[in-house]
Amino acid sequence: MFVQQPIAILDSGVGGLTVAREVMRQLPRERIVYFGDTARAPYGPRDPEEVTRFTREIVDYLIQFRPKMIVIACNTATAFALEDIRARVNIPVVGVIKPGARAAIGRTLTGCIGVIGTEGTINSGAYEDALREISPHVHVISEACPLFVPLVEKGNFRSFETYEAIRRSIGHLRKFPMDSLILGCTHYPFLAEVIQEVIGPNINLISSAEETAREVSTILQDQERMSRGEVLPVHQFFCSGDPKLFKSIAQQWLGEQIELTPVVWQVPKIG
Amino acid sequence: MFVQQPIAILDSGVGGLTVAREVMRQLPRERIVYFGDTARAPYGPRDPEEVTRFTREIVDYLIQFRPKMIVIACNTATAFALEDIRARVNIPVVGVIKPGARAAIGRTLTGCIGVIGTEGTINSGAYEDALREISPHVHVISEACPLFVPLVEKGNFRSFETYEAIRRSIGHLRKFPMDSLILGCTHYPFLAEVIQEVIGPNINLISSAEETAREVSTILQDQERMSRGEVLPVHQFFCSGDPKLFKSIAQQWLGEQIELTPVVWQVPKIG
Repeated sequence: MFVQQPIAILDSGVGGLTVAREVMRQLPRERIVYFGDTARAPYGPRDPEEVTRFTREIVDYLIQFRPKMIVIACNTATAFALEDIRARVNIPVVGVIKPGARAAIGRTLTGCIGVIGTEGTINSGAYEDALREISPHVHVISEACPLFVPLVEKGNFRSFETYEAIRRSIGHLRKFPMDSLILGCTHYPFLAEVIQEVIGPNINLISSAEETAREVSTILQDQERMSRGEVLPVHQFFCSGDPKLFKSIAQQWLGEQIELTPVVWQVPKIG
Repeated sequence: MFVQQPIAILDSGVGGLTVAREVMRQLPRERIVYFGDTARAPYGPRDPEEVTRFTREIVDYLIQFRPKMIVIACNTATAFALEDIRARVNIPVVGVIKPGARAAIGRTLTGCIGVIGTEGTINSGAYEDALREISPHVHVISEACPLFVPLVEKGNFRSFETYEAIRRSIGHLRKFPMDSLILGCTHYPFLAEVIQEVIGPNINLISSAEETAREVSTILQDQERMSRGEVLPVHQFFCSGDPKLFKSIAQQWLGEQIELTPVVWQVPKIG
């Protein structure tokens, strides 16, 4: 019997679910194995060695499912561990930083690109490096937004408090001639509506999650590894922390993408 | 001395210049070798065997430049010869159909996608096949627009005649619930403004040229073949027909992308 190889998606916790959701939407034939390291989240304040070690542990766990690709759906883990993991496995490894950077370069006309993310991601300079690696002349405006992740995790997507936090964090970016703003954190797509209201209607918001799923599709097709399955795939979700909380957030975030799809939930020992 | 390997871009004529322009814009470090088969254009009315033979001849010519990738920047040649060329060379080969299809799947919310192209492209069903291969449930509305290429080649981008031709060709598509329209011909980006006026402001226009350049970038980076050059690349342009006419159209279409960049123009023997 032909066993369809899955796409492995890993994250420090729940943020990477936005990437999983986009992979389900854009590649409905593909099976997903997701690991959220909720017991050790967030990775943002941890040092690079620790993040790399945690990422290796998750990859070692997920590799038993014989994935055809690994997606590091966490900005911090992408910044610190992507190259390490690429060197350790012989399947494609995709992070969330370069897809967002590439999409912004594709869409900008002014050449001025904004990036918002956690303090860890912004301080690492990973988006600026990725943008300049491809296109040396782009002008990059970065802003750390430490208030945003807690708002999303509380499910506080559209309140007055959210609007005010976003206005105070990024309202001043309106004075720059940027025409594209990268949502450089997997949690941020939930705040996209309010971010668009604050930053103005003429700015392209670039979702790392959406763009990463797109690149997963491109690379799978280039390598002729795309699934041709005609039946609904059974996705598997694992977490290292409280499974009830994880399942409840995942069901809410994945929404209609898992309404018709069978899903398996598990809590393995890891680390 | 390290010689930077170029990206080879080929087309039946001038249409593929929109792809070259986007590759220059999105990947300014990359060197391009372009071949436009202007003496034998258009490919649209030719049979698949002939198109495949012509495409092979151009690839055999371009391979002397040791390209790191081949881009078939022509919808007809992509539809008929992509798989043949992929089997003949050991470098990545990218066409213009799957990138446009994938971008539309990424952007659509209604799941209803429009495609416009030449009669050859629309009749081949290549976009429908590419869309359904990735996402089996999308609804596709296709319309052949044989009047558009002559308008572009006359430089007639915004006249009343152009508006009327576009309105008569695609005005009726407004009745469908589509939210994304693929410009499935490399000439059409020049008509994008009028197409948007006719089809309405809420439809995403998907440019195959822009999306193909984006996938070229994704695949080069995945394969670690992206140029890190710090000097302006010298592009080379070849055509099989009248070099004066080709150069004049190319200079106009490539516009600011070649203002600062050295370019070499040549007419080789082929076929």
